[in-house]
Amino acid sequence: MSVFPVILSQDKFVHRDSLKFPLEERALQFGDGVYEVIRIYNGKYYLFNEHVDRLYRSSKAIKIKLSYSKEKLKELLLELLNRNKMIEDGKVYMQISRGSAPRDHVFPEGVEPNIYAYVQSLPRNLSTIKKGVSVITHRDIRWENCYIKSLNLLPNLMAKQEAKENGCYEAILHQDGLVTECSASNVYLVKDEKIFTHPTTRNILHGCVRMAIERFVEELQIPLVEDAFLLNDISDADELFLSSSTSEITPIVSVDGHPVGDGKPGEITRKLQDAYEKDANIQENIIANA
Amino acid sequence: MSVFPVILSQDKFVHRDSLKFPLEERALQFGDGVYEVIRIYNGKYYLFNEHVDRLYRSSKAIKIKLSYSKEKLKELLLELLNRNKMIEDGKVYMQISRGSAPRDHVFPEGVEPNIYAYVQSLPRNLSTIKKGVSVITHRDIRWENCYIKSLNLLPNLMAKQEAKENGCYEAILHQDGLVTECSASNVYLVKDEKIFTHPTTRNILHGCVRMAIERFVEELQIPLVEDAFLLNDISDADELFLSSSTSEITPIVSVDGHPVGDGKPGEITRKLQDAYEKDANIQENIIANA
Repeated sequence: MSVFPVILSQDKFVHRDSLKFPLEERALQFGDGVYEVIRIYNGKYYLFNEHVDRLYRSSKAIKIKLSYSKEKLKELLLELLNRNKMIEDGKVYMQISRGSAPRDHVFPEGVEPNIYAYVQSLPRNLSTIKKGVSVITHRDIRWENCYIKSLNLLPNLMAKQEAKENGCYEAILHQDGLVTECSASNVYLVKDEKIFTHPTTRNILHGCVRMAIERFVEELQIPLVEDAFLLNDISDADELFLSSSTSEITPIVSVDGHPVGDGKPGEITRKLQDAYEKDANIQENIIANA
Repeated sequence: MSVFPVILSQDKFVHRDSLKFPLEERALQFGDGVYEVIRIYNGKYYLFNEHVDRLYRSSKAIKIKLSYSKEKLKELLLELLNRNKMIEDGKVYMQISRGSAPRDHVFPEGVEPNIYAYVQSLPRNLSTIKKGVSVITHRDIRWENCYIKSLNLLPNLMAKQEAKENGCYEAILHQDGLVTECSASNVYLVKDEKIFTHPTTRNILHGCVRMAIERFVEELQIPLVEDAFLLNDISDADELFLSSSTSEITPIVSVDGHPVGDGKPGEITRKLQDAYEKDANIQENIIANA
């Protein structure tokens, strides 16, 4: 696997090992910041504008004022790939915190936000994309503003860890039985050739892959109903799938040990995966060859 | 104000400026950790055991296994004061994260938690303790596990910042009108010589000063009713006050611009402040001299 040593720090490019944070960084003490993970295929960003737009929305929601424009940030992120000679599949992790200042709940004045971004190699997870994954269900105990992609991720970590300890890939989160999303992805139920998913309220993240799916279904003429489904609906579901920038569109074939539908990835999920590969301009089309 | 250059890092003492964190520290990317702020009077810890016990409870709740015992940690924290020649009023901030590892929601294996603690000067805020403070009310939008003193503090920051922007000291948080606590303190209502406060469920922090107050009321024979009060109850309250390690016991004299009771610190609040000063062995008793 390649090593990508160049990091974006503020508007400079520095070596990965040289970037260190002081003990009173607000991300470190409060989780006071926001982030994005942007997918890269063949050295090119996928859903680039969507991610950058969301980063600015998240920042604004927690009142962090960025020191440069979207256009400037996009230039820097593109330059980051160039400087790392990035030509494979991967991702960029990017984070913005309110900055470093003596610890105080009240926002510091006159402090620059801390921005950094780095590249990682990330081959497509072909096994899970093809075969699907098993998930658990878990109460959604998070705060109300999950539409903000913030660094306050402890409940997400706890749910994902519990999934892993149960031999599963993800956790479907629910509020009193109403399904919101997964710990790090959006989730969808297919029934009678319609797709159901939680509306984009404050309680869930408006995923960038979800935005792409909203385009795909229009072209494919599959109804997407923004109406949250219940845990109870899963036993009668025809298909279930999740989406995120690292998981793409992944079939869910088992929930809490019970198979979904016939226990295999469904037709509509396959169609969306195919649309995804075309949209992302992925050269080796694994779905068509499955 | 004194400078205290020595920091506890893991089980070593290092210079403040030498402690730096890499970009994949889990506190920095996930808020994946817990913390404590311990009050110091005249160079001595107050409610020391309570804070250390809670730190271990919080760590356990998020499945961080500490590498040394409570006794060893207490020794290190006492040594921290010695090495800094700390003899005045102050506080120690202490933080434990799950450690540094390549970013993944799932907990890393074989990684040591990162522990650090540092000393700060903190004179008592005599003005607010004597005169009381104004607060706003704010919806409690936090996650369900606020009994864990975690580094996921964004909703608390947002509420405190809104208080400050309204010229206030704190924000009283409520769930549909039911008062839980403040953004960084517990809150109490006095009516007919009884004290009401939210029970110590998962939804609030069990404050160390609150634990002390539970002792004080027993001695003073003042009934403390663990029954949450409503925002609506505030207009008829005789007194209102808050407690935390940095705010001690502080009267609340105004809520959303409306005076509490006669708009002055109340009798029961004064009695508790007096008990606090005695318990903390504070030499210059400001309450008696008020």
